Amino acid sequence: MSSTVAARLERARAAARQAGLDALVVTPGPDLQYLTGVVKHSHERLSALLLPAEGDPSFVVPTLERPGLDGSAVETMDVLTWTDGVDPHALAASQLGDVRRVAVASDMPALHVLGLRDALPGATLELATPILRQLRMRKDAEEITSLRQAGAAIDDVHARVPGWLVPGRTEAEVGADITRAIVEAGHAEAAFVIVGSGPNGASPHHEVSDRVLQTGDVVVVDIGGPLPDGYNSDSTRTYVVGEPDAEVREVYAVLQRAQAAAVDAVRPGATAASIDEAARAIIRDAGYGEFFVHRTGHGIGLEVHEEPYIVDGNDLPLEPGMAFSVEPGIYFPGRWGARIEDIVVVTDAGCESVNQRPHDLQSC
Amino acid sequence: MSSTVAARLERARAAARQAGLDALVVTPGPDLQYLTGVVKHSHERLSALLLPAEGDPSFVVPTLERPGLDGSAVETMDVLTWTDGVDPHALAASQLGDVRRVAVASDMPALHVLGLRDALPGATLELATPILRQLRMRKDAEEITSLRQAGAAIDDVHARVPGWLVPGRTEAEVGADITRAIVEAGHAEAAFVIVGSGPNGASPHHEVSDRVLQTGDVVVVDIGGPLPDGYNSDSTRTYVVGEPDAEVREVYAVLQRAQAAAVDAVRPGATAASIDEAARAIIRDAGYGEFFVHRTGHGIGLEVHEEPYIVDGNDLPLEPGMAFSVEPGIYFPGRWGARIEDIVVVTDAGCESVNQRPHDLQSC
Repeated sequence: MSSTVAARLERARAAARQAGLDALVVTPGPDLQYLTGVVKHSHERLSALLLPAEGDPSFVVPTLERPGLDGSAVETMDVLTWTDGVDPHALAASQLGDVRRVAVASDMPALHVLGLRDALPGATLELATPILRQLRMRKDAEEITSLRQAGAAIDDVHARVPGWLVPGRTEAEVGADITRAIVEAGHAEAAFVIVGSGPNGASPHHEVSDRVLQTGDVVVVDIGGPLPDGYNSDSTRTYVVGEPDAEVREVYAVLQRAQAAAVDAVRPGATAASIDEAARAIIRDAGYGEFFVHRTGHGIGLEVHEEPYIVDGNDLPLEPGMAFSVEPGIYFPGRWGARIEDIVVVTDAGCESVNQRPHDLQSC
Repeated sequence: MSSTVAARLERARAAARQAGLDALVVTPGPDLQYLTGVVKHSHERLSALLLPAEGDPSFVVPTLERPGLDGSAVETMDVLTWTDGVDPHALAASQLGDVRRVAVASDMPALHVLGLRDALPGATLELATPILRQLRMRKDAEEITSLRQAGAAIDDVHARVPGWLVPGRTEAEVGADITRAIVEAGHAEAAFVIVGSGPNGASPHHEVSDRVLQTGDVVVVDIGGPLPDGYNSDSTRTYVVGEPDAEVREVYAVLQRAQAAAVDAVRPGATAASIDEAARAIIRDAGYGEFFVHRTGHGIGLEVHEEPYIVDGNDLPLEPGMAFSVEPGIYFPGRWGARIEDIVVVTDAGCESVNQRPHDLQSC
C-alpha cells in the first residue's frame, strides 16, 4: 500500500472515530479512488471498501472482478470474494460485525444502500460525506499540481475557441471541435461541452444544439473534463461574435467585477457563503440580482462538483488547499447570458487561480 | 406526452398499486429514460419523477436545469423547481404527501435515498426494481428493433476484428481500432472494449493492456455500447492468432456446445436458471466446471446489465420479449480463456439471436 493511501485511510478512520461512527462502506466512485486509488466502473455487483473505525480495512469484490485489483492498494487488505448467487450484503455485514452507526459513500446506489440496511438491522446508515469531504476538500500538494495541470490544459482549449466561433457554424460543430481539442490537450475525455449561443446562453446547463451562430451572438463556452489521473478541469469564458452592443458591454462589466470581487474575497477563514455574497452583492446592486440564478461555485477535484459549495448558507470557513470554481453568471431568458469561471485554490494568504485566460469579453 | 410514455407510466402505476406501494421515486438513469424518455446526467442536485400509485405524476428539478426539460414528456406534468439552498427532499416529501411504502430506483444515489428517508419519517423505502423490471425486461416491438440494430452494428465490428489481431501489436492498439469501429458502426460510444489475449483472456473483466500479441494466443474480444437511442449491444467472440493447439480446440468445442445448448433451451416458460444449467452441465460434464466462474448471462436493453439474470437460483419463467446474453466461458487462470456471447430475444416458439457472426474459433 502506498504511503498516500495508508495516510488517507488512517485519516478517514480517525475522522470516523471522532464522529462516533463504527465503519465506513465505500463503493466504487471518487471516494474509493481518493482513499485507495482503485477505479472501477460500478456494476450491479457489490464491490466495497469496508473501513472499520477500529481494526483493519477489507475489500469485498465479485470473484470475477478480483483480477482487476492486482497490484492495487487493496490487495494488501483482506479481500473477500463472492460469486453470483451469494448475498454480498450479508457478506459485508458479517465482516463488519456488531456495528451501530455506518456511513456510506454518497454515490452508493440504492440497491446497495437498502441491501446493507436490511443486512444490518441493528445499524443506522448515514452519509460518509461529512467525513470524507473533510479529507477530500483539503487538497494536498500532489492534488494541487494535478488541478494546475488540468487548468493549463483547458486554458489551451479556450485559447483556440475564438477561431471556431464563426457565423454560419452550429453550436454542435463548434462543440465537436472543442471535444477533440479537450482530448488533444491531455484530458482523458471531454466530460462536458457547453456552447450556449444567443438565447441558449441564458440556460446555464445548455449543452450544444443545431443553432447557427450569427453576428452579434453572445456565446457562453463552459468546458472541462478529467485528466488521466482523474482530476478535473472546468472553465467558462463568454465570447461575442462580432462586436458587443451597449447592453452586453454594460452587463458584462458588472459580471466581470462580480467575479473579480469574489476571487478577491477568497482567503483562509472567509466563509463559503461570503464568497457567494461578494459576487452576488455586486450583481444585485447593479439591478440584475434576479438574473443570477445559481450558486457562485462548487468544489472540484476527482469530481467536477464536490465540496465545498460556494452558496448562501454555507458557513464553512475556507482553508488552504480547498479548490473550487468562482463562476457568477447573468441570464436573460430567451435573450442571452454570460458567465465567467475560474478554478481557484485557497493559499495561506488568499488564492491562486489555475486558469489564466483573460476575463475580458472576447470578440471573435 | 407520447402514447408510449403515457402507457409506460400507467403500467408502472398499476404495478405499484398491485404491489401495495404508495409511490415510485425515480432519479435520472435508465428507469427514468424508460418511463419518460428523459436523459439527464445525474448531479448532486435532486431531479426525480414522483409517480404516486393514485394521482398524477410530477417532476422535481433544479430551477437551472428546468430548460433541459423543454419538449420532454414530463413538461405536461406538474414540474416543481427548486433553487440552491432549498431542501429538495422536503419538497419531494411534501408533494408525495402521506405515503407509507415508497419504492426508489435502484441506481438512486445514497445522498437522495437517505435524504428521502429522513424527509419521509413515516415511510419505508424499498427498491422499485421488482416493479420496473417487470416492465423493462419485457421488450416491446420498438425496443426489439433497437436491439436488432445494436446487434447488427456490433457484428459489423467483429467482422473487422481478425484484421487487427496481428502478432506484435498490443491489446491497447487493437482496442483503439475497435473503439473507433464501434462508433463508426453507429454506436453513440464504445462502452466497453475487452481484448484479453493469452493469460489476460482468463480474467473475464479484463479490459486492454500493453501486452503484445503473439502467435498462438487465444484472444477474447467482448465489446459493445449504446446506440444513440440508448439500447445496447454486447457480443463476445474468441479468436486465435495463428492455429489453435489440441487443448484449445478441445476446450473450445465444449464451450461452443455449451453456448448452443443454452440458446436451444430458451423458450417461453423455461426458467432463467434452466438456461444457466443447460450451459453449465455440458461444461461440468466435460470436467471444466470449476473454470466457468460466472453466470451464463444478463438482460440487456437501456442498460448493458439488467434483468433477467441467467443465473442459478433464478426461477423466473422466460416470456416473449425478454432479451439477454448467453455467454458461457471457460478460464484457466494465468494461461488462457474463451467465451462466446450472443444476445437473444425470447420469441413465442424459442428465441431469436440479434448477433449473426460465426461461432467457430476464428484464426487470424
